[in-house]
Amino acid sequence: MSKFWSSLVSELQPYVPGEQPKMANLVKLNTNENPFGPSPKVIEAIKSELNDNLRLYPDPGGLALKQAIARYYGVTAKQVFVGNGSDEVLAHVFQGLLKHDKPILFPDITYSFYPVYCGLYQIQSNVIPLTESFEINPDDYKQPNGGIIFPNPNAPTGRYLGLEHVEDILKANPDSVVVVDEAYVDFGGETAIALVDRYPNLLVSQTLSKARSLAGLRAGFAVGNEELIEALNRVKDSFNSYPLDRLALVGSIAAFEDEEWFETSRQGVISERDRVTAELERLGFDVLPSKANFVFARHPEHAGADIAAKLREQGVIVRHFNKPRISEFLRITIGTAGQNDALLKSLVNL
Amino acid sequence: MSKFWSSLVSELQPYVPGEQPKMANLVKLNTNENPFGPSPKVIEAIKSELNDNLRLYPDPGGLALKQAIARYYGVTAKQVFVGNGSDEVLAHVFQGLLKHDKPILFPDITYSFYPVYCGLYQIQSNVIPLTESFEINPDDYKQPNGGIIFPNPNAPTGRYLGLEHVEDILKANPDSVVVVDEAYVDFGGETAIALVDRYPNLLVSQTLSKARSLAGLRAGFAVGNEELIEALNRVKDSFNSYPLDRLALVGSIAAFEDEEWFETSRQGVISERDRVTAELERLGFDVLPSKANFVFARHPEHAGADIAAKLREQGVIVRHFNKPRISEFLRITIGTAGQNDALLKSLVNL
Repeated sequence: MSKFWSSLVSELQPYVPGEQPKMANLVKLNTNENPFGPSPKVIEAIKSELNDNLRLYPDPGGLALKQAIARYYGVTAKQVFVGNGSDEVLAHVFQGLLKHDKPILFPDITYSFYPVYCGLYQIQSNVIPLTESFEINPDDYKQPNGGIIFPNPNAPTGRYLGLEHVEDILKANPDSVVVVDEAYVDFGGETAIALVDRYPNLLVSQTLSKARSLAGLRAGFAVGNEELIEALNRVKDSFNSYPLDRLALVGSIAAFEDEEWFETSRQGVISERDRVTAELERLGFDVLPSKANFVFARHPEHAGADIAAKLREQGVIVRHFNKPRISEFLRITIGTAGQNDALLKSLVNL
Repeated sequence: MSKFWSSLVSELQPYVPGEQPKMANLVKLNTNENPFGPSPKVIEAIKSELNDNLRLYPDPGGLALKQAIARYYGVTAKQVFVGNGSDEVLAHVFQGLLKHDKPILFPDITYSFYPVYCGLYQIQSNVIPLTESFEINPDDYKQPNGGIIFPNPNAPTGRYLGLEHVEDILKANPDSVVVVDEAYVDFGGETAIALVDRYPNLLVSQTLSKARSLAGLRAGFAVGNEELIEALNRVKDSFNSYPLDRLALVGSIAAFEDEEWFETSRQGVISERDRVTAELERLGFDVLPSKANFVFARHPEHAGADIAAKLREQGVIVRHFNKPRISEFLRITIGTAGQNDALLKSLVNL
């Protein structure tokens, strides 16, 4: 606390990202990165932009990237917003679309940045428990609210909510913005972007950090009704004109254009996820059904924190959340076949 | 206006960045970019980072960059904050350090993003007129306030306030944060960073977009007392964990390490600025004394808007602000010798 701080600052409970250890030879399965590198076409596109033009500001609107995303999803560029990773996009969403008189709704077990944004923008929330089986029950989202947000698939559970249930929530809340945070949707879910023309209250956010292997490049986006996108543009243009640099813009465009690489990469993750799930179950773990690039698992006889510590001793890092209801679980990112083998081998003698 | 917007959104008056026209062969002197490209070592550093590691998140704290900046200025890494351009840094500064009960103070003619941030974070301001000769008078900043911010050199005037006057303001306001926004300081001013150990209320912000020719890469920073930096870290970690991508981090570090290139580049801009100033005066312009990479000039017989329009017809773009007190002025970025010659030639027959 300092007399120089705005009163807000001392109340903030900042988000804690998964650690980025510097050690080599680590089996790093703690931050849901893609085990496969980005498309070689992304590297080429960035290389070709590496010149004296770096002295010039990027396009503040990121129009070429919006157009690439619009083409990919069959929407218009005016229905697309781009930002510095989906975290920045979500920050603008909270400030511009979710701050109303009534509290917003989100699940109790979910992306832990949501309550942080509520603190940053002083938004009231009404936290809705997931069911016993860690699922979102759409009926729980039929109560007065100032907005709704949930990841689909949810994190850290990995559980996916079918689009018919998403529609159920959209229909029950015509006066609220419903944000579907699809960071992990490409690993087996179906995107709600197909619904944006029918539901003016729907905003879908996505990232290039997961299925497109560009966590290091910082790009995310949202798709929705033009009216919602306009709010995000207004907030962004009041915050930072150029959140995406010239290299991130061209790299992201190339990522959307290389569909073949994308397909191979996500199928590789999906098949490894299915294998890891089966092997974990064979080792006695309960594994929640996952449509993400991670699994959420617990062992009936070993504490989550203990398993995480033992794995770390063997150079395998997974994420453990010391929180109610999930403290016995581990969130394990799907790695390469070799990394997954190392994980499974380390778990044999618990 | 939309029922989905937070009440704030419709009140926002977003910042309007200088245009980034797509036409080739334009003499683009409108956004204060450096006419010289970045250091070749920056390009090399980025190239060496262009690999599969783009799948991994960057270091959320940007520690290596903080260390490079700390080494350069003789401070500690804990006295340094880094962000996605100085605009993002300033946004966090407004939210975390300038939002208090009393209004903040800034000049009437200054960086036009300041009132935008006030709108975004609902901060009251008390706008202080520059003197008749467009200077900051330190005595005007000796009144109750919730914080003070000004660019030094000021923009768009280019006028520089000597450090003894900055100290005068710091001493008169021991309970307020005084932010010196030094985007243009390397073109002839002296940085106030040397004062941070003596004034716990001083925060200095800078950018890599100007003297370091990296507007396209998006990197900025602030230096100050650890207590002030801690506030910025808390806000940033509640907004976006990773605002600087892997390429921007390594490129920015390389920019600080290539002092020779930096020196040549800024001296080139300074000598061209002096030449352009003399030539403009020969053409009858009043030119404010500038320590920036632009000049602010008016012609006693021609309207600013008219000159800007005539220049545009000839493919030369400068910036004109249709605002009280400065509507007769043009802000002209210093270009290469060839670009400046094109500008001067276009001004001969007004």
